[in-house]
Amino acid sequence: MKQPLTIAQFEEQLRGKGELYHIYHPFHIAMHKGECTREQIQGWVANRFYYQASIPVKDAAILANCRDVETRRLWIQRIIDHDGDAEDKTLGGIEAWLQLGESVGLDRQDILDEKFVLPGVRFAVDAYVNFARNATWQEAACSSLTEMFAPKIHKSRLESWPQNYPWIEPHGLQYFQMRLSQARRDVSHGLRVTLEHFVTRDEQDRALNILQFKLDILWSMLDAMTLAYQQDRPPYKGLIAEPIYHKRILK
Amino acid sequence: MKQPLTIAQFEEQLRGKGELYHIYHPFHIAMHKGECTREQIQGWVANRFYYQASIPVKDAAILANCRDVETRRLWIQRIIDHDGDAEDKTLGGIEAWLQLGESVGLDRQDILDEKFVLPGVRFAVDAYVNFARNATWQEAACSSLTEMFAPKIHKSRLESWPQNYPWIEPHGLQYFQMRLSQARRDVSHGLRVTLEHFVTRDEQDRALNILQFKLDILWSMLDAMTLAYQQDRPPYKGLIAEPIYHKRILK
Repeated sequence: MKQPLTIAQFEEQLRGKGELYHIYHPFHIAMHKGECTREQIQGWVANRFYYQASIPVKDAAILANCRDVETRRLWIQRIIDHDGDAEDKTLGGIEAWLQLGESVGLDRQDILDEKFVLPGVRFAVDAYVNFARNATWQEAACSSLTEMFAPKIHKSRLESWPQNYPWIEPHGLQYFQMRLSQARRDVSHGLRVTLEHFVTRDEQDRALNILQFKLDILWSMLDAMTLAYQQDRPPYKGLIAEPIYHKRILK
Repeated sequence: MKQPLTIAQFEEQLRGKGELYHIYHPFHIAMHKGECTREQIQGWVANRFYYQASIPVKDAAILANCRDVETRRLWIQRIIDHDGDAEDKTLGGIEAWLQLGESVGLDRQDILDEKFVLPGVRFAVDAYVNFARNATWQEAACSSLTEMFAPKIHKSRLESWPQNYPWIEPHGLQYFQMRLSQARRDVSHGLRVTLEHFVTRDEQDRALNILQFKLDILWSMLDAMTLAYQQDRPPYKGLIAEPIYHKRILK
């Protein structure tokens, strides 16, 4: 039997997965360099909304699989962060993303209707929610650890977008600002859970595989957008005049 | 309220969805024309295996949601068709596909290990299984109706592959031959269920959306293969020496 990694080694390997974060995807690199057209930015924002809107559902699935009250008390904050509160005293992540959508020129209702969500993006995001529904809460917590790499990506957008895309209203960028501090807090909890829960070498390998699964989701989303928006090859190109994709079919 | 379509109109609209079948995907067109390299054929066969191997699991999920004994008696044949029987007196679809894999030069164990399965393919196929787990059996039956379009695609492979890809052992093509008659029988049952079950216009629209969902799955699979095998842009290209994707994480 293989020796388990030390806690420090295990954390190092988890953090090392950052080398495959979607910040290195060609679509994302182009976006960062200011090379994206208005249509490409709009496509990205509209598709990424499906991810944003699915996050609190994913987190609720984690709560629904967790009988530990302490964990639930901490984890519920993630749902509130994305949903905001009813009186709109705190801005939720979903609302902030809708405002980003409007600031890049999208229609709010089109975003909410998931009108531009590519099938490949939907399947990838749904895989994340489905995993959270069916895995243990600790495994699902582990899958969220791409948050370790998120502050860097949010910061890079805050720094580069105003110069590169001056046509985007700066007000729209507040989502990235909000997430800077929220992601840091979430990481510290998710990482602690993962380091404590996955103990044998087989379990640690499974944790690394779960994190790879999440990286694959983020990468696949950009792959679908690459074909549709960079290569002008959306599904059924040339077969129909208007894009047609299925609407969401499961709650 | 909109008037429901007549049965004939409803069937016509379902069959009309064949215009978006993956037979018209550029990757598939290239494959049909004999333009695929050995590596592209191998990539397709290895990835498509994940779909083949998931079909009986999907059909078992349909059985598991069906309390009607008559339906189960019919539907169980689909599982047997793919799995074959224990004494190997009848060849199952999965075994036939493995033989196709070997005849295009793949290693049987590599296929079984899902070594080359691209994340985008996995997410699309898993969406199909997940839908069958969570939808009613009639909705899941409806999602299988792309079988209406399958005989044509199998026939086209049987006709064109021997000339276009003479390096493939002809023995490997028996899967396509088997499915010609099986698919026809399955369609007649699935279509009857769908035409009888979806009655109001809203229900009929939902059935058409479900069939679109299935078309989107097949199309997305080829999109992922397009990037990886036609454009030499597999996930994480340039970031790592060897391909790395997550292994299957849910049963």
